[in-house]
Amino acid sequence: MKIILKISGKIFDEDSSRLIQLRDAVVNLVSKGYRVGVVIGGGQTARRYIELARRIGSNEAYLDLLGIWTSRLNAYLVVFSLPEVAYMKVPESLEEFIQAWSYGKVVVAGGFQPGQSTAAVASLAAEASNADLLIIATNVDGVYDSDPRINPGAKLIRKIKIEDLKKVLNNSHVQAGTYELLDPMALKIIERSKIRVIVMNYNKLEKLSDIILGKEVSTLLEW
Amino acid sequence: MKIILKISGKIFDEDSSRLIQLRDAVVNLVSKGYRVGVVIGGGQTARRYIELARRIGSNEAYLDLLGIWTSRLNAYLVVFSLPEVAYMKVPESLEEFIQAWSYGKVVVAGGFQPGQSTAAVASLAAEASNADLLIIATNVDGVYDSDPRINPGAKLIRKIKIEDLKKVLNNSHVQAGTYELLDPMALKIIERSKIRVIVMNYNKLEKLSDIILGKEVSTLLEW
Amino acid sequence: MKIILKISGKIFDEDSSRLIQLRDAVVNLVSKGYRVGVVIGGGQTARRYIELARRIGSNEAYLDLLGIWTSRLNAYLVVFSLPEVAYMKVPESLEEFIQAWSYGKVVVAGGFQPGQSTAAVASLAAEASNADLLIIATNVDGVYDSDPRINPGAKLIRKIKIEDLKKVLNNSHVQAGTYELLDPMALKIIERSKIRVIVMNYNKLEKLSDIILGKEVSTLLEW
Amino acid sequence: MKIILKISGKIFDEDSSRLIQLRDAVVNLVSKGYRVGVVIGGGQTARRYIELARRIGSNEAYLDLLGIWTSRLNAYLVVFSLPEVAYMKVPESLEEFIQAWSYGKVVVAGGFQPGQSTAAVASLAAEASNADLLIIATNVDGVYDSDPRINPGAKLIRKIKIEDLKKVLNNSHVQAGTYELLDPMALKIIERSKIRVIVMNYNKLEKLSDIILGKEVSTLLEW
Amino acid sequence: MKIILKISGKIFDEDSSRLIQLRDAVVNLVSKGYRVGVVIGGGQTARRYIELARRIGSNEAYLDLLGIWTSRLNAYLVVFSLPEVAYMKVPESLEEFIQAWSYGKVVVAGGFQPGQSTAAVASLAAEASNADLLIIATNVDGVYDSDPRINPGAKLIRKIKIEDLKKVLNNSHVQAGTYELLDPMALKIIERSKIRVIVMNYNKLEKLSDIILGKEVSTLLEW
Amino acid sequence: MKIILKISGKIFDEDSSRLIQLRDAVVNLVSKGYRVGVVIGGGQTARRYIELARRIGSNEAYLDLLGIWTSRLNAYLVVFSLPEVAYMKVPESLEEFIQAWSYGKVVVAGGFQPGQSTAAVASLAAEASNADLLIIATNVDGVYDSDPRINPGAKLIRKIKIEDLKKVLNNSHVQAGTYELLDPMALKIIERSKIRVIVMNYNKLEKLSDIILGKEVSTLLEW
Repeated sequence: MKIILKISGKIFDEDSSRLIQLRDAVVNLVSKGYRVGVVIGGGQTARRYIELARRIGSNEAYLDLLGIWTSRLNAYLVVFSLPEVAYMKVPESLEEFIQAWSYGKVVVAGGFQPGQSTAAVASLAAEASNADLLIIATNVDGVYDSDPRINPGAKLIRKIKIEDLKKVLNNSHVQAGTYELLDPMALKIIERSKIRVIVMNYNKLEKLSDIILGKEVSTLLEW
Repeated sequence: MKIILKISGKIFDEDSSRLIQLRDAVVNLVSKGYRVGVVIGGGQTARRYIELARRIGSNEAYLDLLGIWTSRLNAYLVVFSLPEVAYMKVPESLEEFIQAWSYGKVVVAGGFQPGQSTAAVASLAAEASNADLLIIATNVDGVYDSDPRINPGAKLIRKIKIEDLKKVLNNSHVQAGTYELLDPMALKIIERSKIRVIVMNYNKLEKLSDIILGKEVSTLLEW
Repeated sequence: MKIILKISGKIFDEDSSRLIQLRDAVVNLVSKGYRVGVVIGGGQTARRYIELARRIGSNEAYLDLLGIWTSRLNAYLVVFSLPEVAYMKVPESLEEFIQAWSYGKVVVAGGFQPGQSTAAVASLAAEASNADLLIIATNVDGVYDSDPRINPGAKLIRKIKIEDLKKVLNNSHVQAGTYELLDPMALKIIERSKIRVIVMNYNKLEKLSDIILGKEVSTLLEW
Repeated sequence: MKIILKISGKIFDEDSSRLIQLRDAVVNLVSKGYRVGVVIGGGQTARRYIELARRIGSNEAYLDLLGIWTSRLNAYLVVFSLPEVAYMKVPESLEEFIQAWSYGKVVVAGGFQPGQSTAAVASLAAEASNADLLIIATNVDGVYDSDPRINPGAKLIRKIKIEDLKKVLNNSHVQAGTYELLDPMALKIIERSKIRVIVMNYNKLEKLSDIILGKEVSTLLEW
Repeated sequence: MKIILKISGKIFDEDSSRLIQLRDAVVNLVSKGYRVGVVIGGGQTARRYIELARRIGSNEAYLDLLGIWTSRLNAYLVVFSLPEVAYMKVPESLEEFIQAWSYGKVVVAGGFQPGQSTAAVASLAAEASNADLLIIATNVDGVYDSDPRINPGAKLIRKIKIEDLKKVLNNSHVQAGTYELLDPMALKIIERSKIRVIVMNYNKLEKLSDIILGKEVSTLLEW
Repeated sequence: MKIILKISGKIFDEDSSRLIQLRDAVVNLVSKGYRVGVVIGGGQTARRYIELARRIGSNEAYLDLLGIWTSRLNAYLVVFSLPEVAYMKVPESLEEFIQAWSYGKVVVAGGFQPGQSTAAVASLAAEASNADLLIIATNVDGVYDSDPRINPGAKLIRKIKIEDLKKVLNNSHVQAGTYELLDPMALKIIERSKIRVIVMNYNKLEKLSDIILGKEVSTLLEW
């Protein structure tokens, strides 16, 4: 089974405990015979560099590049935590990802190009590797019927269809919070290739195997 | 004045006359002191390769790559028509574009990454080069209030605001025809960096100077 | 057993059926334990680009480059038909080919450098990989004692020595048609490394295994 | 006049004001006809990544790489502050630096290889570019006869010979503090090529021109 | 006026005097407004490495690669003798040569690919740069009507047509000695692009300007 | 067991016999299940190029580069002697080494960057690959209590601690001869990562297995 796991760069903003959980989760999947790719966001460091560059008047494309390079630095941290199983270079484009993937190792990527979110990168990676599953690990348990940070009674949706997912993402009340989840480009790729997607909480990485099997709380995009 | 010109790959589907018009237009702009970047689409050859690959079961990401590589082949045709003024390598990413641009030559690009249209590439190039103007050369004279191929009474809009442009692009009646014009990612970049855009007809390349000066029929996106 | 297979780019000028035959033939060889390299020509698309560039006054070196880049595009089509067994990057020089080959996957190449035919590329690849056999798949069944397209009574030569092959290739009556078969550089490499060569018809790819074993019509260059 | 300026990565740990001072100082030098190279350290961000990697058990070579990559990120911040005068790629080896330098633009580098300090990188850059002067900008005014952070009566040395500099650097009392200033490899390169060196305070970047001319407080290594 | 100068690697087998003559000749041409490219052979060092590799059983393609890499080392020696006027990287393919050439500096190359002589590389470089003249500097004064090393009465031919040059090169008595001069691939490129060629003695580099103007002994291939 | 073997470039100055011994020793180790990396020096050829470049006034950084490139040429000779077991590209930086190493093949490197000895390169490679052992093969049997070339009664030290090794290396009487053994940067890396080191004679390559097991004369740096 082939899996692409997209993780928010926020997990690098704290101590090393979550990095260790990520490593353990990946090693566990590999030991079970899964093929695994990981796509990492930029997190707080990216935001700091972008902020500094904005103050000196850099254009938006330059800001995106700083975010991408930081996400690659984060990706190398993950690579260095997996010296026995990871492909030792962070691919910088989809071409490089495809080549890296063909060696049978765990491939860890950050961003590819300005204008693309890391969710879009993960979607492309899932498409190019003909992955069985794309997992989006974020700071909530999955997709809700309304924004759980505003509405305490928001209900988690366990299984969702693409049309309903689009409605939720377009719903203005949750737009701000979900923008990061799946931007239009990620959504387009997921839709055109009918990629199965699980949205999960990165605080539950130690239950990743169960989440993949549908035994733990998360949201599954079905086709 | 810095200009990024995006041209449909369709101009490579015919004889060499339009290629010569493009060359002459670029040389003319350079001789007037303009700095020029050109972004080229894939055209019919791209569609042929994509069609062949689809028949053998390639995934969508691979299909996009074939389209990108063909657009780079088209870009080299343009480079080879401009041996005295062009940067002699087609950049394959925004990083490479930025470096290429800094030498002061005409830079010609095709696609960068799967999931991005060449309109998005051109928008990124305009943003990264702090261009004064992004020109989209397509097979109609500009943006119309309805689809000119369906409605013979469709009226060309000479000046448009971003909100109105979005409405036109979202209008389901014209969506099919205008998808190619500006996809959501291109639109996002244009909006975040408030890039001035002219939509023009690639059959009027010989009037490009006048179009830039607003003396010829086209549509201007104003801010 | 290590085999380098050189195929005319003409097979890409048609529908996808021959591409599928090529894929099946390669998969079949791999399943039997052969190590396989494939070198692809440019075909009709290359000729179209070269023609366009010639009209805008490009020099011969640029024309050769366009042909090479197109042959690489064709090579990627073959790579994408073999996602499980192929090395996922088309090598662009012999150095890259050698490295690619060492991973144990099927390596697919187009051209390397201007002034070299793809037959020469295939000969270099056979030499560098210490291949047991170089197969040239073209549009006739092998080497004839006279040009089969002119002389209906031309006889296919089943086994040939290098001295006789040279005579046939130098024979002015067949020169035009055989130039593509083996240019002087390919011949020089084949001779200096005493490479076994089979010339076969690309319309018989489904019989490739038998041809290798000498059970099917073709021409063998013996040493 | 050719100058290589090495600046501690500490200037990136704060707000953007010092980055702006650096930009203004470089622009000022360029406007006076100087050729300028800048070498940047990793600063606090590098230390954070190294700390995270150390906790997950990475070896020292990996830690050095994380520091180098962060210094390159810092270098890009400087490049993006100088879009009109800087070479737009951060060189990753001395070969790349030499090529970048030959274009006549301001070249900004971070680290090159593990085991080398950025002071050593700056020394190599000064040597390879036949620079007239290597400037080390640190958090004190220059070289002192004893550690100014320990001994309030420490005296700044305005001009120093290599033998005396070595003695100061070898003096165990100041070793901890001066290690960062010039490691043995930097010293070896400076000595073998007799490079003129000025040690200055990065809080006085706005007086850089005067420091170069010897009109402001700093330490000069004379030959 | 654009010139490509091909020099035998033999000049590196001796002391540095001939390297200095080459440098002075190139600087002189540049000062007169010529654009200059230089292609260097491998010489004695190449032969030594090839001999070592042959003894350990390397194939011919590997031997060619060792020769090419040595010729690039020789090329860097020339680059380092011209730090003010040379492009600081030795191009490793025709694509790289074309890009290097476009910067307006002196470009120095060694070999490109196995199976090509450096004379063929120089011919390709002349073709791709639309050079006015290709100069082949060897150890005799030009092309003779018979082998001057065998026949003391051999006469130097001052002007020659391509048909006559081919006859001389094909003449079996001089073949051994002239193989190095122009191999079939070099000849093919020279002929297809009608390149003007001067064959001269590398012992007369100090008279290079006069030789270009036809005032000194050498052989000119006219069209 | 993972081993990095550093060998003086002197072994390339002679006939091919020592190259064959090196090949046999590596093949033997691989057959016993060792993972092996080899780092090669420049030898006499490097010195010749450096001498030529010095005469034309090249700076020290350029001289170092010529030495590095020659060591890579030597490294390729070793690669070509091991076509079945070696990674077919010589890595040019530690990043490349790390990636090359991850494929499980024998990796052969020359130098990385100016200012670093090949002993430092080997130390970095040992550190980055978490090697169990770094072997330095030189022209004496190990580390002596005084210079064996001066003092015939010098005694070989079979086991040594880092403090004692430093004293020996700092001892001015043996400094000249031992500088090549371990420069300060190599020593720093060995010390910070507590790398086990064996110093042995390259005339005893055929006993390499026994030396690793401590059954043959050599010096072991213990921790």
